Amino acid sequence: MSAVWGDKIKITIFGESHSDAIGIVIDNLPSGARLDIEEIRREMARRAPNGGEFSTPRKECDEVEIVSGYFDGKTTGTPLCGIIRNTNTKSKDYSLLKEVFRPGHSDYGYFIKSGGNNDYRGGGHSSGRLTAPLVFCGAICKQLLREKGISVGSHILSIANMKDSAFPININGGELEDLAREVFPLLDKSKFESMRNIIAQAREEGDSVGGTIECAVTGLQGGIGEPFFDSIESRLASLLFSVPAVKGVQFGKGYSLAEMKGSQANDPFEFVDGKVVTKTNNNGGILGGISTGMPIVFNVAIKPTASIFKEQDSINIKSKENTKLKIQGRHDSCIVVRAVPVIEAVAAIAIYDFLR
Amino acid sequence: MSAVWGDKIKITIFGESHSDAIGIVIDNLPSGARLDIEEIRREMARRAPNGGEFSTPRKECDEVEIVSGYFDGKTTGTPLCGIIRNTNTKSKDYSLLKEVFRPGHSDYGYFIKSGGNNDYRGGGHSSGRLTAPLVFCGAICKQLLREKGISVGSHILSIANMKDSAFPININGGELEDLAREVFPLLDKSKFESMRNIIAQAREEGDSVGGTIECAVTGLQGGIGEPFFDSIESRLASLLFSVPAVKGVQFGKGYSLAEMKGSQANDPFEFVDGKVVTKTNNNGGILGGISTGMPIVFNVAIKPTASIFKEQDSINIKSKENTKLKIQGRHDSCIVVRAVPVIEAVAAIAIYDFLR
Amino acid sequence: MSAVWGDKIKITIFGESHSDAIGIVIDNLPSGARLDIEEIRREMARRAPNGGEFSTPRKECDEVEIVSGYFDGKTTGTPLCGIIRNTNTKSKDYSLLKEVFRPGHSDYGYFIKSGGNNDYRGGGHSSGRLTAPLVFCGAICKQLLREKGISVGSHILSIANMKDSAFPININGGELEDLAREVFPLLDKSKFESMRNIIAQAREEGDSVGGTIECAVTGLQGGIGEPFFDSIESRLASLLFSVPAVKGVQFGKGYSLAEMKGSQANDPFEFVDGKVVTKTNNNGGILGGISTGMPIVFNVAIKPTASIFKEQDSINIKSKENTKLKIQGRHDSCIVVRAVPVIEAVAAIAIYDFLR
Amino acid sequence: MSAVWGDKIKITIFGESHSDAIGIVIDNLPSGARLDIEEIRREMARRAPNGGEFSTPRKECDEVEIVSGYFDGKTTGTPLCGIIRNTNTKSKDYSLLKEVFRPGHSDYGYFIKSGGNNDYRGGGHSSGRLTAPLVFCGAICKQLLREKGISVGSHILSIANMKDSAFPININGGELEDLAREVFPLLDKSKFESMRNIIAQAREEGDSVGGTIECAVTGLQGGIGEPFFDSIESRLASLLFSVPAVKGVQFGKGYSLAEMKGSQANDPFEFVDGKVVTKTNNNGGILGGISTGMPIVFNVAIKPTASIFKEQDSINIKSKENTKLKIQGRHDSCIVVRAVPVIEAVAAIAIYDFLR
Repeated sequence: MSAVWGDKIKITIFGESHSDAIGIVIDNLPSGARLDIEEIRREMARRAPNGGEFSTPRKECDEVEIVSGYFDGKTTGTPLCGIIRNTNTKSKDYSLLKEVFRPGHSDYGYFIKSGGNNDYRGGGHSSGRLTAPLVFCGAICKQLLREKGISVGSHILSIANMKDSAFPININGGELEDLAREVFPLLDKSKFESMRNIIAQAREEGDSVGGTIECAVTGLQGGIGEPFFDSIESRLASLLFSVPAVKGVQFGKGYSLAEMKGSQANDPFEFVDGKVVTKTNNNGGILGGISTGMPIVFNVAIKPTASIFKEQDSINIKSKENTKLKIQGRHDSCIVVRAVPVIEAVAAIAIYDFLR
Repeated sequence: MSAVWGDKIKITIFGESHSDAIGIVIDNLPSGARLDIEEIRREMARRAPNGGEFSTPRKECDEVEIVSGYFDGKTTGTPLCGIIRNTNTKSKDYSLLKEVFRPGHSDYGYFIKSGGNNDYRGGGHSSGRLTAPLVFCGAICKQLLREKGISVGSHILSIANMKDSAFPININGGELEDLAREVFPLLDKSKFESMRNIIAQAREEGDSVGGTIECAVTGLQGGIGEPFFDSIESRLASLLFSVPAVKGVQFGKGYSLAEMKGSQANDPFEFVDGKVVTKTNNNGGILGGISTGMPIVFNVAIKPTASIFKEQDSINIKSKENTKLKIQGRHDSCIVVRAVPVIEAVAAIAIYDFLR
Repeated sequence: MSAVWGDKIKITIFGESHSDAIGIVIDNLPSGARLDIEEIRREMARRAPNGGEFSTPRKECDEVEIVSGYFDGKTTGTPLCGIIRNTNTKSKDYSLLKEVFRPGHSDYGYFIKSGGNNDYRGGGHSSGRLTAPLVFCGAICKQLLREKGISVGSHILSIANMKDSAFPININGGELEDLAREVFPLLDKSKFESMRNIIAQAREEGDSVGGTIECAVTGLQGGIGEPFFDSIESRLASLLFSVPAVKGVQFGKGYSLAEMKGSQANDPFEFVDGKVVTKTNNNGGILGGISTGMPIVFNVAIKPTASIFKEQDSINIKSKENTKLKIQGRHDSCIVVRAVPVIEAVAAIAIYDFLR
Repeated sequence: MSAVWGDKIKITIFGESHSDAIGIVIDNLPSGARLDIEEIRREMARRAPNGGEFSTPRKECDEVEIVSGYFDGKTTGTPLCGIIRNTNTKSKDYSLLKEVFRPGHSDYGYFIKSGGNNDYRGGGHSSGRLTAPLVFCGAICKQLLREKGISVGSHILSIANMKDSAFPININGGELEDLAREVFPLLDKSKFESMRNIIAQAREEGDSVGGTIECAVTGLQGGIGEPFFDSIESRLASLLFSVPAVKGVQFGKGYSLAEMKGSQANDPFEFVDGKVVTKTNNNGGILGGISTGMPIVFNVAIKPTASIFKEQDSINIKSKENTKLKIQGRHDSCIVVRAVPVIEAVAAIAIYDFLR
């Protein structure tokens, strides 16, 4: 049990919301890989709070300092450590949280777990801020995957009950790469205004909304993955459920499959131009844990931001009394938008780990 | 990447559908634990095909031989290996599958992965039969959890589009243990006839149906789990998606949370009789990856059995031609019933691994 | 901490000296590898007690049943489980050992560790008998290494204070393979009679002797291994010290290097026929944890068999009194001879794990 | 295979000799542990080059910045990351080493391994400098062990062929703690002058000398460790051989045991004041991989510093020619002295990993 993940590569994350720095060590990268630092920055910027319309007014300077494993513009194959300083932290905001726990957050669990020795400021190590190093790592993995002809991209599948279309079966890598450059990626762009309004209204109410994100990976050859413990689903889900606020994961048609008949759910094989494909992709490119060569498709449920500005019922652990809590500070009213690059990042990490 | 799973305990599974035997090695069990062998047998029987109404007419003798790690009626703490002989295998049924792949199965992926050296009989190592050792291990973990006051139980949440009620917030361990003794566990038993009819009809049509299973774990103290990679969700999901046919996993209200507002989704804390509880349990007993002390609740989507008796489109990998496939043999028209003890088993394993 | 070892392959051992069976699961072998079963048998026979001159009068039937991962004469790439039944066990020999601990054995440590729940018969899981599955696995790895042009072989470097010559710098694979077919491999065969006499005398006295084994691996390319935790030395030593009775490991000139000057110890590089070699191989083919392309050379110290027939001082844990112990039964007076194939086996496993 | 080590705690090291920084992430430390930062500094200073008599004239500022996992003077239980900036690096010294390899170093192996993409400056990631983070981690583990009544200490057992006495059987923790405060720890201090002269002479000659270090751990209860892969010997050796320049490891009497008879080597048990002890400790406190409750005793062979100032034969990988190399720069003529705290550190880490 640990802050280490991976088999062929190994990633170790560290840091707290308000510690001096957060970061990641990525072990067993290939040597000699040139990194497009500018693209890494763009990925970081997609996740970073920028004070924009879909983000907290808090600005974080998510500049990554690569302190090892990188020499002459190329990876050396030794552990690559990226460090992000926590520069814009206002610790005074959090003093109350030492004894009163925020509903929907891990504050209480961490208090019990650490015997009260946790860094309670801003969620400590549980903070969504720890997804920044994951995006950094994901940006590197995306580049390494692209060299193998593999693309990762996603779109917002829903905000609250407003839904985007789902990926078509013939989604291609170029489209995914295009989506991955958008701030608010949608397949059906006509839904944008409604979604924006839902988020704006939640903000006005001091409340928050959730949503879902659909992600696809194209170009992954068949025969990758393992049955059982290291099924593609298991490995992906293990990372997807690491992302704060993810409470559900479905592959392919997911829960809809449970309502289908076998004759509908099974994806028939056929040769097309000498290549094996399936006529449908209900199983999301994975059968028995192993890739079929069709696009990997999955979606995740993101719960509404736990930090809301409405008064909530809570407890004071010191006085042992029920109490009311009204959270101050700067928080997203909908984290789905900023979660998009995080979901892509962990998908890239999980898939790359199979291929390294 | 491997057939090994676990942190504090480690389990290693082996075997193919038609190899001489399948089995499991369970490492780092506590020493001195008395095992209720009869209860283990009952759990195995819940999963085993028994020729009954909800099972394939094939009967498998799932008697586990414990060959190590068990002495004088107690565990020794050394690796406990359980072996199950494959006695009732008709290999002749599978000769065609060497070159024609069953839709919905891992046959094609495994063919690519192994360069054509896979044991194609009955799905080989990917076979659902490999869940038998998991149920064996789960039965042991359930006993070890019960000693800690923790219960695991589940019910069929839906068959096709026919739904059972969901667990109430105040589900207790006794009720879970009762459910775990039923063949077709339901909260609302009035749904039984309809579900039975759905399954019977699918069988008559040579087709199959899927469904969902809801599982709960009571008695788990707060403060267990880790943020990120070893969140309770991550660990559980990694094992749940190891179970063949599972295509979706939700914790607590799961996908419904994505449509809620934060003020609805957050579970307010309160003291009740000096104990910390939450008034609702939308998050399924897990916040930020860590247990809150409320029941752990999740559900899984099981796709319809991939083996159906209707003619399906497929390919012949040798002749490189499209072809038709009509599967012979003995298969469940709905594996949800037999999947219930498997889901409970992996839940027990995942939770016990946190507590060992 | 567990009975699982390995990174690219993973091996899990199980069993006790007197349990129903012992065995091993080898995970992540390549698919499609033909195994020479006869050669595996020969390797097993080198280790097995055969009632011969250098072995205990006890005979063990070390026939391995491969129950999974092997189909049509080839590996499938799925977990390969080999089981060895314990057929010739006389449990009555061991009843006293429940409360009186044998000096030099793990009996006392295991008693404490397991709270008295250990299988005390014949050393239980700590028994040297558990090296049989390792030899089985090593025999497979040797075959896989041979396909890559890599040979593993060893000789008895000393029995008590009688020493064989050390490997010359230009040892080659053919010589190693020849040594690996001998019962009592020596470079200087003139030492055989003296060594035999030393062992015979120890047996007559009811005592035992130890010795050292030198092992070499040829054909390993340069650039394999990692600095620090996964140095070739670390990985090899971790398995070598797993072998019961090994109490020391040296690579290259080992302890002699500590008495050399840098100008003597450093191995100068040179091109010979366009190939990089070192003029000496004091470092045993490993620098900074990484292979140089020169033969990997190391030796191990094997302590004298702990089971002797002389009366020894011990304790009775039940009566809490000092007592005398006289071990009965059938034991080797020198396990060095039978340890030779075990050392080769773990060397083959460790090196293959780097290359899989 | 990776820069990650450990089971219950997990450590990840990163950095190169001349990268911006080196460091370590320590995962799964207990929460609420107060750290004596001053003592950590003292331990770091023991290893750091200080320009003193037994060190390179190069001075490194080994100030560790703890950037996470530490709050209000206590560990939080989340990953603790310590970063050490590389401030005193003269990169110009190393330009030649891009194509000419230093004998005795990993330069050649790393060149092959990385396809020429390694950071060749000062040994890159293979540099002994990476032992600084290990000493940092060891200092923390020592403090945590001390709270459990466990002490770790060592002395220089030999420099070249000049030997110190070995630890007596009744070594105690207080003595070990005293030794751990000395710059040049010896049991027989009369050997100091001779050893100093040997080192001084090697320096004058532009050469180097090696030696051995004996280390002991007192206070470890019986019953810790595992047979086989996680024997105390295996775990310790895996870390000890991670330390650059270590080429041999012996436990207890080690290689001398190979020349003893069983009746001499076996350590007889006895009750002394109701406590189980052994009359001798030839096995170094470990039997069958498991602790006996006696002091853990082992020693390691350290080869002479590979960097010497004499001209050596080498190759130029670019021109494919044999060449001569004369190393410039600042190097220890005997690294044994500075290796002492490193050996203690990894011993502390390995033992603590069993106990966490």
